[in-house]
Amino acid sequence: MTTRSPLAPAAFPTLPDIAGVSRRVARAQYKNWDRCDLTYVELVPGTAVAGVTTRNICCSTEVEMCREGIAHGRARALIVNAGNANAFTGYRGREAVEQIVAQVVAHLDCDPKEVFVSSTGVIGVPLPKDKAREGLAKVIGFAGPPASWEDAARTITTTDTFPKGSAASAIIEGRTVQVAGIVKGSGMIAPDMATMLGYIFTDAAVAPALLQDMLNEATGATFNSITVDSDTSTSDTVLLFATGQAGNAPLTTRDDPGADALYAAIHAVALDLAQQVVRDGEGASKFIEVQVSGAVSDESARRVALSIANSPLVKTAIAGEDANWGRVVMAVGKAGEPADRDRLAIRFGDHWVAKDGLPVDGYDEAPVAAHLKGLEIRVGADLGLGEGRATVWTCDLTHGYISINADYRS
Amino acid sequence: MTTRSPLAPAAFPTLPDIAGVSRRVARAQYKNWDRCDLTYVELVPGTAVAGVTTRNICCSTEVEMCREGIAHGRARALIVNAGNANAFTGYRGREAVEQIVAQVVAHLDCDPKEVFVSSTGVIGVPLPKDKAREGLAKVIGFAGPPASWEDAARTITTTDTFPKGSAASAIIEGRTVQVAGIVKGSGMIAPDMATMLGYIFTDAAVAPALLQDMLNEATGATFNSITVDSDTSTSDTVLLFATGQAGNAPLTTRDDPGADALYAAIHAVALDLAQQVVRDGEGASKFIEVQVSGAVSDESARRVALSIANSPLVKTAIAGEDANWGRVVMAVGKAGEPADRDRLAIRFGDHWVAKDGLPVDGYDEAPVAAHLKGLEIRVGADLGLGEGRATVWTCDLTHGYISINADYRS
Repeated sequence: MTTRSPLAPAAFPTLPDIAGVSRRVARAQYKNWDRCDLTYVELVPGTAVAGVTTRNICCSTEVEMCREGIAHGRARALIVNAGNANAFTGYRGREAVEQIVAQVVAHLDCDPKEVFVSSTGVIGVPLPKDKAREGLAKVIGFAGPPASWEDAARTITTTDTFPKGSAASAIIEGRTVQVAGIVKGSGMIAPDMATMLGYIFTDAAVAPALLQDMLNEATGATFNSITVDSDTSTSDTVLLFATGQAGNAPLTTRDDPGADALYAAIHAVALDLAQQVVRDGEGASKFIEVQVSGAVSDESARRVALSIANSPLVKTAIAGEDANWGRVVMAVGKAGEPADRDRLAIRFGDHWVAKDGLPVDGYDEAPVAAHLKGLEIRVGADLGLGEGRATVWTCDLTHGYISINADYRS
Repeated sequence: MTTRSPLAPAAFPTLPDIAGVSRRVARAQYKNWDRCDLTYVELVPGTAVAGVTTRNICCSTEVEMCREGIAHGRARALIVNAGNANAFTGYRGREAVEQIVAQVVAHLDCDPKEVFVSSTGVIGVPLPKDKAREGLAKVIGFAGPPASWEDAARTITTTDTFPKGSAASAIIEGRTVQVAGIVKGSGMIAPDMATMLGYIFTDAAVAPALLQDMLNEATGATFNSITVDSDTSTSDTVLLFATGQAGNAPLTTRDDPGADALYAAIHAVALDLAQQVVRDGEGASKFIEVQVSGAVSDESARRVALSIANSPLVKTAIAGEDANWGRVVMAVGKAGEPADRDRLAIRFGDHWVAKDGLPVDGYDEAPVAAHLKGLEIRVGADLGLGEGRATVWTCDLTHGYISINADYRS
């Protein structure tokens, strides 16, 4: 990995073991690099699964097959290939994924729909079948100690500068259940779609339909509320696995005792993982929270917030620690949502810079400039029209983003 | 002006005089710079006017007043202030514009609606009234020689690196009529709205309604088909003035003899000016033409083309001369328009790199890499679904864009 993002957490967190989940990593050498790039997670029989995937129409074979597996509702294994997205590779790419699934089915004697494969990296190059087969052979049936969460989190990365994990717990009728997740993502991150690659595991017993319901709700305010560069991956996938090993009576509805607590834990893990992706945004030097209030609806507020969060001019101004709030006005006005210039108010941090269509009386830029020198920036816009509100997270746009992306394949 | 864009034309073109149009420039010192920044254009009585303005909801007072003038249909003067956009400045900004209009009305004894004012530069700072009054006093009633087109084109600029002008002519029933235009724009350029600041003049006699009809049509395929950074100015304005001094019988419908020829000249000037804005895109090192065909409709093709043209990952790849066509696939897929991964074809220049959902057989990257080393890049996507097609123009995304915009106000 390259230099760790200045916005990274101090260290990888301690994640609990999730009963029914075992991990292995291997070197498939999908790229010519000195690291593991194949992750294999085996799940106990009976594990429920939920998932959300990219809305990008040109999605990968992996995503199409994940959707079939999600509909099936049960999972036995997850394989993640890093360094090659295998997207837009036609029948050759599909053959590679089918080979991986067949190899796992032969080992676990399970339904092919219960094997989930993700791939991430360059688009348009078929995943090399020989490397996949040899890499997978190293981890299937391996008897030694499992890979750590941190190893797995590191093995699924591509341009990420730090491995990302999070955990929470909940109590279901007196039993503690654990939730742990890992995620990768740094660029090609846009919120209109599912997300990058994220995997969350719990030992709680949950029916697949309820699990899916919880994941859909959690994703909206977490993975779907972040943006790095407004670009949406062809491979975005978040999967949530519930092994049922905690021994609780299986949850089937949100009214079941403990369901709300479990949801809160899932939401907390998803939010932390999503924000870590922004903190590792390509070239990021500032973490930015955009809060919009006073919109005609929450959805309208969200669109305005994304217009601000995706504006190259807003993002470069913040990179330059420049309180150029006129660009926030511009981004509100171009969003295509109801707004009234003369009721609009803008703030940085807790400092209002403009209200009712003009700069505030006696505007003092000093505290605003001080806020912008920090690593955590908050931008607020109140539209003054209604009760709609939304929060999204993004990072600034810097020379680092250009350097990383003008020369990605070499 | 800073270093001239590598994509700039060799020199400012020779533009014809337009009878009934006289120009003056002055130093109002809206910023502390060593250049003219106030442009005054006086138009002969009877001049017709048409215009298109930004769709940004947070538009400036200038834009609101231009709209009233466009509805009126007649013009006597145009004033352009550079260095201060006077947008989001509330009643203070409005007072400054009203003072300018009153000063011109006192001189010309005309209807206030016939005075058009534009301002461009930083948002949120009221235009200084004293500087405007003193600057305008230097040019109103000035008896010496008019400013050249190049002087005027240079005086309306802000971050532009070269002045932009274009001209064409047409024959209306045996009489030659002239069309000449100037434009400024470099950043905060997005095509969903009207445009930056552009002014086109003709000596043809044309009824205001027909003039507006011609401008609307020309704008769609020119100023509204370019993007630098997907950000839309609060001040975007294009005005088209027709002085009627050519002596032709006034045109009132598109069926009148010569109307098509005049339209073609207006379209040619608008297209050249729009492409010059892209050639001066902030930090641009490549001029990019994006052609989409095979879409279900022209409008759908346009949205897909804009998704490609606005993708930071596509633009940085081209800056890096990297044939990373997977990013074009990604941008097609995220556009939200009908597309079928397995019918999609992508090309750079005339070289097809992918067809029917996978790389072309025997793909040779050498000629593609050679095309990408040039200054003029063509990206094509055929969706294979229908007859819809569209072309848009953009530039690459480079370190220069970050440098310019992270430190714009200092």
